[in-house]
Amino acid sequence: MIQRLTIIGVGLIGGSFALALKSAGAVQNVVGSGRNIENLKKAVQLGVVDRYYTDPLSAVRGAELVMLAVPMGAMGPLMAQIRDALEPQAILTDAGSVKGSFVRDAREALTDLRRVVPGHPIAGTEHSGVEAAFANLYHGRRVILTPTDETDPDAVERVRKLWEATGAVVELLDVARHDRVLAATSHLPHLLAFGLVDALAKRESREDIFRFAAGGFRDFTRIASSNPEMWRDICLANKEALLEVMADYQQNIEVLMGLVRDGKGEGLAAVFERAKKARDQFVG
Amino acid sequence: MIQRLTIIGVGLIGGSFALALKSAGAVQNVVGSGRNIENLKKAVQLGVVDRYYTDPLSAVRGAELVMLAVPMGAMGPLMAQIRDALEPQAILTDAGSVKGSFVRDAREALTDLRRVVPGHPIAGTEHSGVEAAFANLYHGRRVILTPTDETDPDAVERVRKLWEATGAVVELLDVARHDRVLAATSHLPHLLAFGLVDALAKRESREDIFRFAAGGFRDFTRIASSNPEMWRDICLANKEALLEVMADYQQNIEVLMGLVRDGKGEGLAAVFERAKKARDQFVG
Repeated sequence: MIQRLTIIGVGLIGGSFALALKSAGAVQNVVGSGRNIENLKKAVQLGVVDRYYTDPLSAVRGAELVMLAVPMGAMGPLMAQIRDALEPQAILTDAGSVKGSFVRDAREALTDLRRVVPGHPIAGTEHSGVEAAFANLYHGRRVILTPTDETDPDAVERVRKLWEATGAVVELLDVARHDRVLAATSHLPHLLAFGLVDALAKRESREDIFRFAAGGFRDFTRIASSNPEMWRDICLANKEALLEVMADYQQNIEVLMGLVRDGKGEGLAAVFERAKKARDQFVG
Repeated sequence: MIQRLTIIGVGLIGGSFALALKSAGAVQNVVGSGRNIENLKKAVQLGVVDRYYTDPLSAVRGAELVMLAVPMGAMGPLMAQIRDALEPQAILTDAGSVKGSFVRDAREALTDLRRVVPGHPIAGTEHSGVEAAFANLYHGRRVILTPTDETDPDAVERVRKLWEATGAVVELLDVARHDRVLAATSHLPHLLAFGLVDALAKRESREDIFRFAAGGFRDFTRIASSNPEMWRDICLANKEALLEVMADYQQNIEVLMGLVRDGKGEGLAAVFERAKKARDQFVG
């Protein structure tokens, strides 16, 4: 049981974390903080947090555990800001989608990484804000923790137990590996979806295009309705891994374009079959 | 009421057409044909067709209306084959995803286009085969008819009424415009999804990649589970329009990659915001 949990950034991710822990009885008192006061007021109304401070220093004072659920670009400045108000034994964790940049930011801002447990819940929807939060968001989802060599094992265990209380399945992963894997399955697809919708929206025939879009297009582009600032930060924070997998993917697309251009049906079908097989087997 | 409808290719699309018309009481008798005898037997067992012929000539004799629901590459050879068995007043329609190539194939095989009504239901799932068929597939979906200058208006009206009986919303569109629009909203996304899954499946870390894939990835790649032969044919049949929109899209992706590489957060966020706005507005 956590006596006092502070969540900075009470949106879909942070808000659902709070709701899940409250409904599991794993936390006594939840304090929220963030930049948007209207959102914080709503968070209190909805019972997501018990009270809020617009000032993050006041919010983290007395907290056993602090969860940072803010865009990647806000992590560094925020940690530098709250550093002196953190209790000596407070555990600091986060829900950011890029772990390398978070660890770099934490090292720079806090020096001491013993009580820092970098984390990433593989969950979310295209919606944002505290109204989108719900207690079951993490149920059956994976949460990746990427402790560094310096992280206290007991801090990792406490964060693991909290996530398990939300119904999530926790796994430990190396920081760099996490960032490579997520670049492939999440960051690249988001970039492609944003890029496709934007390209089509600029076309002269956009009205027809969107009018005749069917379910396949809706699913394919769902992630293009995600939060732009959050994804800007993720793309920049995970730049190297993203560009690496992107180059690999682009090479594959160039090959596919060549097969179409040259009318190579066999080659095309072979790629499509491999892809279908992989997806049916692994994703289901 | 159609006395006798023949469907060549009794899979998801052709089978659902038959089921919808039967349940609407819009057709008396449905004959099926196709290359896969097991699938045809199942179609009879499931009540999708009343009987079948493996020989398409026998299947189209006596039919008032013939629906071709086969891959684009099979359309031309099939029309040449059935030409002499078609009743003089029989209406020939199709459910192919590319209309330019269908009209070219029809002109070559049949010469006379008066009773040919090219059509395309904007519906489907990633599943195929007659077991995937269901009567409500077209409910509320759009069906595009692309009659040529030569098409008899009464043939168009009869096909329109049939589709309306399935619950679909019918629209008329110019052939070339149809192919440009569908290249953008359907053919390109399929190519990208196949290309992405294939690129990731070839990576050394594919096990981790697919293990940590979340709902966003599942939605984004759903269309990569589509039928490979069908999509090979579509990509080749709509080659020009596909390559044109592809080049446009690729240019946009190159710009995005450049913004990531140069750390241009403002530029990235602007693209993401435009895309989100377009999707939220048009697709919902």
